[in-house]
Amino acid sequence: MISVVGHTAIDHLFRVPALPGRHTSTYITEHKVYFGGGAANIAVGIALLGEKCSLISAVGGDFAGSDYDRWLRSLEVVQDFTVVEDAFTPTAYVFTDEDRDQVTYFEWGASAVRSDMEAPALDFVHMATADPGFNVRVAEKAAFASFDPGQDLLRYSSEQLASILGNIDMLFSNHHEMAEMCRMLGTEQDAIVASVPMVIMTKSAEGSVLYHEGAEHQIPVVTVDAVDPTGAGDGYRAGFLTAYRRGYDPVDCCRVGAVVSSFVVERMGTQTNLPDWERMLARYRKHFGTLEPTDR
Amino acid sequence: MISVVGHTAIDHLFRVPALPGRHTSTYITEHKVYFGGGAANIAVGIALLGEKCSLISAVGGDFAGSDYDRWLRSLEVVQDFTVVEDAFTPTAYVFTDEDRDQVTYFEWGASAVRSDMEAPALDFVHMATADPGFNVRVAEKAAFASFDPGQDLLRYSSEQLASILGNIDMLFSNHHEMAEMCRMLGTEQDAIVASVPMVIMTKSAEGSVLYHEGAEHQIPVVTVDAVDPTGAGDGYRAGFLTAYRRGYDPVDCCRVGAVVSSFVVERMGTQTNLPDWERMLARYRKHFGTLEPTDR
Repeated sequence: MISVVGHTAIDHLFRVPALPGRHTSTYITEHKVYFGGGAANIAVGIALLGEKCSLISAVGGDFAGSDYDRWLRSLEVVQDFTVVEDAFTPTAYVFTDEDRDQVTYFEWGASAVRSDMEAPALDFVHMATADPGFNVRVAEKAAFASFDPGQDLLRYSSEQLASILGNIDMLFSNHHEMAEMCRMLGTEQDAIVASVPMVIMTKSAEGSVLYHEGAEHQIPVVTVDAVDPTGAGDGYRAGFLTAYRRGYDPVDCCRVGAVVSSFVVERMGTQTNLPDWERMLARYRKHFGTLEPTDR
Repeated sequence: MISVVGHTAIDHLFRVPALPGRHTSTYITEHKVYFGGGAANIAVGIALLGEKCSLISAVGGDFAGSDYDRWLRSLEVVQDFTVVEDAFTPTAYVFTDEDRDQVTYFEWGASAVRSDMEAPALDFVHMATADPGFNVRVAEKAAFASFDPGQDLLRYSSEQLASILGNIDMLFSNHHEMAEMCRMLGTEQDAIVASVPMVIMTKSAEGSVLYHEGAEHQIPVVTVDAVDPTGAGDGYRAGFLTAYRRGYDPVDCCRVGAVVSSFVVERMGTQTNLPDWERMLARYRKHFGTLEPTDR
């Protein structure tokens, strides 16, 4: 079982002719709902690749019986949810007009309450963006813990961040997040990389780098016709974690991550084009050759 | 059975610190959902007053199993719905900031499809704001038809409006709507009033006027501590129609309408404070004395 901690969220994407000014209104010409939230994206990716997965999130009273609920159930993602009955499931309302101007209204909703919760002792957990205090406690108790700070880094104190980095086995970060972590801790990238057993830096079109046992491995990006980059990082993590849990070599795990990520960007939405293991494997072979188990 | 034709809609009212500019985002500090839509407001009012009611609306695939669905079922409102599976139930998203600046995004959703539908032959129907062509056909076939043009008047052609006015037994209108109807038909208020058996003009704080059998009756407003005027007119119509269906004199029906309306404005939301018949009656007696059946 892979546990994933963080947000389960809903993205409402609206098209309007023009964004309304104050005290005016406009009509919606298109409304699409995408299932999202960093943790849920990763959990769904893992489940589709065929690993058992549990998702630890806070959702609102509106979640049970929703389409998203049904989607997660159909994938047999275990919902280890805190249900806040009088709150909404975290939701982004994004309005885009014909000039591609955009405004976003984000509702934390149920996610605002996680802070006081006792953390479970987990065997193998990935912590996506979530309440800092909760993640600190999860990292302390977990047998194997992986972490990506995501967009919530600014909500962490430097003590909380230092505590997490001191307790994790794996760190996923992009350059922006790494720079921010260095600033918060008053340290250099080399020091952070040296302090965590495995660090994966993702670099968009330039692929990713794995730092492991003193070595640095470059993993090229799997180039496709990209439509929407949202969720690419979550797809990468889903691929890596699934392959890692299955015992593959970390470099091969990064390649699996790159392949899964390449599927995500081919379609709008973060959970709309995630591959099963066979589909992943076919593309993997084309780009990287055979994928052999190791006795890691 | 009283049938009501028109919108069943959902109002999402959000509070944000400040309305976001283009390409920026903000977070939602409060999110309340109110059940609305002119026809649904009236139907719920009728059901709570104790009359059987059917609601003829178009809703989206998201409606079944929703809280709104459960609310209507609990009131035994018959859902005579056209379900448009791949559309949303009509929804207003209203964002208000701390300076009380406000923007509204309105989604027609399922309501956009009603135009081609065959109209049923109804015994006693109120037509709230809805697809003009559909309302024209409903009015042609109904044994007793009542109409309020609401905010959709601009969507009617003058031919459609003339056809409806020629076929209805009762018209509800405020001054703004009456002025607009006069403009559209190139006629005067007196001519419209003379052409419909019963006309009720609502005038906000000044009460209402009933034009019936050549006479003009002034009905005073029932003054309360008003919090939110939204839905006052729908409450009035629910009260009037229920009392009329029960055989009360039209002037008394207007008084019942005024009383129901006074409850609606006491609380935020259009369906949050509608009274049952007993509660209505208690306030009625305080303002208007006894309510006696007639052999109308």
